[in-house]
Amino acid sequence: MVRIELSIELRYDVGMPGGDFVFNIHCAHTASQTVHQESLQISQAVTPQVFTDEATRNRYLRLHAFPGPLQVNYHAVVDLHHHLAQPDQVPEVPVSNLPPEALNYIYPSRYCQSDRLGAVAMAEFGALPQGYGRVKAIQDWVRSHVQFKQNTTNSTTSAVDTLVDRVGVCRDFAHLMIALCRALSIPARFATGIDYGADPVLGPTDFHAYVEVFLGDRWYMFDPSGTAVPMGFVRFGTGRDAADVSFATIFGSVLTQAPRIQVAALSDPAGLWEQPRHRPEAISTDAAMVALA
Amino acid sequence: MVRIELSIELRYDVGMPGGDFVFNIHCAHTASQTVHQESLQISQAVTPQVFTDEATRNRYLRLHAFPGPLQVNYHAVVDLHHHLAQPDQVPEVPVSNLPPEALNYIYPSRYCQSDRLGAVAMAEFGALPQGYGRVKAIQDWVRSHVQFKQNTTNSTTSAVDTLVDRVGVCRDFAHLMIALCRALSIPARFATGIDYGADPVLGPTDFHAYVEVFLGDRWYMFDPSGTAVPMGFVRFGTGRDAADVSFATIFGSVLTQAPRIQVAALSDPAGLWEQPRHRPEAISTDAAMVALA
Amino acid sequence: MVRIELSIELRYDVGMPGGDFVFNIHCAHTASQTVHQESLQISQAVTPQVFTDEATRNRYLRLHAFPGPLQVNYHAVVDLHHHLAQPDQVPEVPVSNLPPEALNYIYPSRYCQSDRLGAVAMAEFGALPQGYGRVKAIQDWVRSHVQFKQNTTNSTTSAVDTLVDRVGVCRDFAHLMIALCRALSIPARFATGIDYGADPVLGPTDFHAYVEVFLGDRWYMFDPSGTAVPMGFVRFGTGRDAADVSFATIFGSVLTQAPRIQVAALSDPAGLWEQPRHRPEAISTDAAMVALA
Amino acid sequence: MVRIELSIELRYDVGMPGGDFVFNIHCAHTASQTVHQESLQISQAVTPQVFTDEATRNRYLRLHAFPGPLQVNYHAVVDLHHHLAQPDQVPEVPVSNLPPEALNYIYPSRYCQSDRLGAVAMAEFGALPQGYGRVKAIQDWVRSHVQFKQNTTNSTTSAVDTLVDRVGVCRDFAHLMIALCRALSIPARFATGIDYGADPVLGPTDFHAYVEVFLGDRWYMFDPSGTAVPMGFVRFGTGRDAADVSFATIFGSVLTQAPRIQVAALSDPAGLWEQPRHRPEAISTDAAMVALA
Repeated sequence: MVRIELSIELRYDVGMPGGDFVFNIHCAHTASQTVHQESLQISQAVTPQVFTDEATRNRYLRLHAFPGPLQVNYHAVVDLHHHLAQPDQVPEVPVSNLPPEALNYIYPSRYCQSDRLGAVAMAEFGALPQGYGRVKAIQDWVRSHVQFKQNTTNSTTSAVDTLVDRVGVCRDFAHLMIALCRALSIPARFATGIDYGADPVLGPTDFHAYVEVFLGDRWYMFDPSGTAVPMGFVRFGTGRDAADVSFATIFGSVLTQAPRIQVAALSDPAGLWEQPRHRPEAISTDAAMVALA
Repeated sequence: MVRIELSIELRYDVGMPGGDFVFNIHCAHTASQTVHQESLQISQAVTPQVFTDEATRNRYLRLHAFPGPLQVNYHAVVDLHHHLAQPDQVPEVPVSNLPPEALNYIYPSRYCQSDRLGAVAMAEFGALPQGYGRVKAIQDWVRSHVQFKQNTTNSTTSAVDTLVDRVGVCRDFAHLMIALCRALSIPARFATGIDYGADPVLGPTDFHAYVEVFLGDRWYMFDPSGTAVPMGFVRFGTGRDAADVSFATIFGSVLTQAPRIQVAALSDPAGLWEQPRHRPEAISTDAAMVALA
Repeated sequence: MVRIELSIELRYDVGMPGGDFVFNIHCAHTASQTVHQESLQISQAVTPQVFTDEATRNRYLRLHAFPGPLQVNYHAVVDLHHHLAQPDQVPEVPVSNLPPEALNYIYPSRYCQSDRLGAVAMAEFGALPQGYGRVKAIQDWVRSHVQFKQNTTNSTTSAVDTLVDRVGVCRDFAHLMIALCRALSIPARFATGIDYGADPVLGPTDFHAYVEVFLGDRWYMFDPSGTAVPMGFVRFGTGRDAADVSFATIFGSVLTQAPRIQVAALSDPAGLWEQPRHRPEAISTDAAMVALA
Repeated sequence: MVRIELSIELRYDVGMPGGDFVFNIHCAHTASQTVHQESLQISQAVTPQVFTDEATRNRYLRLHAFPGPLQVNYHAVVDLHHHLAQPDQVPEVPVSNLPPEALNYIYPSRYCQSDRLGAVAMAEFGALPQGYGRVKAIQDWVRSHVQFKQNTTNSTTSAVDTLVDRVGVCRDFAHLMIALCRALSIPARFATGIDYGADPVLGPTDFHAYVEVFLGDRWYMFDPSGTAVPMGFVRFGTGRDAADVSFATIFGSVLTQAPRIQVAALSDPAGLWEQPRHRPEAISTDAAMVALA
């Protein structure tokens, strides 16, 4: 077990006549991720709604803010129970055997135009043995072919752009890896959390985007940008791509300040809790929810 | 009530070593759409799976076919109970009040890049009174600015393309209308059925794509290509765009023949069943499923 | 006659192992534009080459700079002899009568994909009477449909992007107007100069991009962004689009500082020289160079 | 010397009220290509104009056709004098030494968006030794990464599309190779001719697109699609890309039939004329026209 403590501070200046926010900064409730402790503070006297999407287990916070400053503070302590597997024991699943919940993730989406990447994916990865190793080869290809560089992309940048321009941030790495997987009919989805373990050279602790791929009987984690340590990822949301799981979707005239985020792995006196580290096994925090009859 | 009888015949030549199919040609089970009678015939001795997506109520048929000819015949008789409303009584819903199930449909998707259409949408429709009338204005704008022409677009064509190229088929009209609605934070989704009432000049009876927009407390139907009669639409599937609800997604080396489709509205001796016709009211076959607490 | 004095100061920090520059900041020599006085200063002891492209009359300055600071100062006094015409006397020219030099400017180019804009151009302008007035209608349409906003676009932004996103700077306005003209087989080219007369609110005096369209027997000036006064435009270069006539094309690792530019219209004691002003006539500074036999 | 005889038959049905045509099917007059004999027949009683673009030496035929059938027959016998060089003796030319005529061909164009391909080009070819061999490596990369397949692309397909989709015809191979060269500041241009020596399996003899790259002191030929024999290429036109040198640009409502083309290498009794064949040397038919002072 890994115990992670995190805190997020978001600050905005809301213009007239107010603004609507949909946040996805609550830790998801899953079989492998238990929220031990959680608190939310909002600087304005608003009535927030927190609701859970049944299909993804994502938890959303929605609120209507008044003009003026808005500050949202979220704090949580979360326990992660990782499923580990030997990479060579984790197979790809033929389309005919995919559970329906995974089937949705082989289709193209806004930022992952897998319908256009069939030829590239087949040329680069078509001849590799199927399984976890092939997906890791996709991850490694993306990591070695794309340069990580801040402020080179924007909210319209897609996997096709990244394949051409070869530069971007974690979100762009994730989109390209997802699109390449789907082009081979391997279900892949976009996941969000915090960049636990990232090199401070890259900047202050920030939100992070990574990838989950359905292999065997569950979703395995991949971090194509390679900037953080997957064992420390607390999951906020999963979706087809960044369009589904923004940390904050904002409606109205709002100025946004940089988030302040802290994350740490806790230790118990007995030393039983693990510390996140890079490890060679396949790592999952999400079994398939629905078995196919 | 409208009673529709439909039959669909799909024929393929499946190459080596066989192919996987995911069909979405089963009529959805909804509160307003009752499947009175239904049958499915498959020419190969395969074991099809039929499963329902909980979030959308779409019913999918999946099968693994052997090399050789494959024929799928689906026949259904369906009762439609339309909700009608006066257009001027149907309001837009502020983001803060949208039910979560609708919230998913304000984000961009593969073929509906609403994130790029904010300026166009605001310039053309931003000053119009909110409500059903504004959405109808969007529909009419798309219909009058895009030319309906077969074989001008393909499976990669998106709303941005259609905004530029101004030509396409029903699917393209739907994508552009959806993207424009979402650019104004109006939830809109892609719906599929059969082009009931289409002019035979456009070709034989075919599958059809149209739009549902969340207004008031339910999803209202719009037919931006204007080629068919919405009251006769039996719904197969809804999704973010065509990526979610293809009639047939095919994996493998497969030759496809043109579908043979028949659709008719039935009459009862007492003359109580309605015949589909163009009508001025707002029409819905789908109330919101989940009310927000 | 209008006499313009201008000075340009460009400053760079050239990295190892040096850099190559191609500038297009020399005033073109044309029948209507006479360079009265001109000087060039370069802070490094390099041997610059200045050459003239025969087809466009553009003058290019090329130099190889050493690592370290580089400063280029150009100063000129230029006389402009404007040809004025009544708009209703300026016809479009059928393709069969275009001089070959104009024919090159009806084809699509990097940033002006006129091959995709035929439908939009026909829908918006196809029914208008041909002639200068139709081209002005295109200019006015671009000006009213696109928002001028700094830092919204970059060096890859094209006319198709601007048609979709509806925002940009002078270069983007020019590209969209050019593409729409070419889509109607009206020759249009990209021209560069200085934004004489621009509102200081938009920032310090800067380079400017505008449009020349072939009508009647010559190229007429249009300023689709509407931010400056065409009578004050000294022409540096013309080309198919910004790819042809950058002020500076830089090869190597070079940091660029903002240019310092001054431009003024001079007056003579006798008051014979005109002062640039907005005027209703069609304005040209370039007759066709080559008459078709 | 190689002597080539070729004939081209183009047939159209011109709709009301007639149409304009600009053809580029005349063999260029260059130092290395001598037109021994030439004839042109046009089925309508029109007055064609033939003019030469000074910058490119391309010869254009323009005519205005009446409604009804139009047939254009062109026949020529052409002598080609190839310049051959040892590949390892053919260097790249630094930007500072490029003749101005070549400088135009390092900028992006409609179908060759070299401004976006810098990262791919540097990653794939940046570490290779400069010279003919590096350009050949680009050609070979394109040939091995793109699949030749008829009817997969259209008139809007660009180098960026081909890099993503990895499929196309000779024109698409040429555009991608050109864009990759320019991304490395190597001048490259689009050239048109006839696919001499093409495998009949690919279809009847057709027009062909290939590439010329400026190396050393002249333009060398490359055939990235690898479908024909460069020594047999009679040059019609060169330009930045296909936008500049279409075989036929048509204005109006015109139906086009497939061209009928014949091409053959002639032999003299003494056996002195060469027969085109694949050969290992670098081949050029065009020295630089303008030397830089």
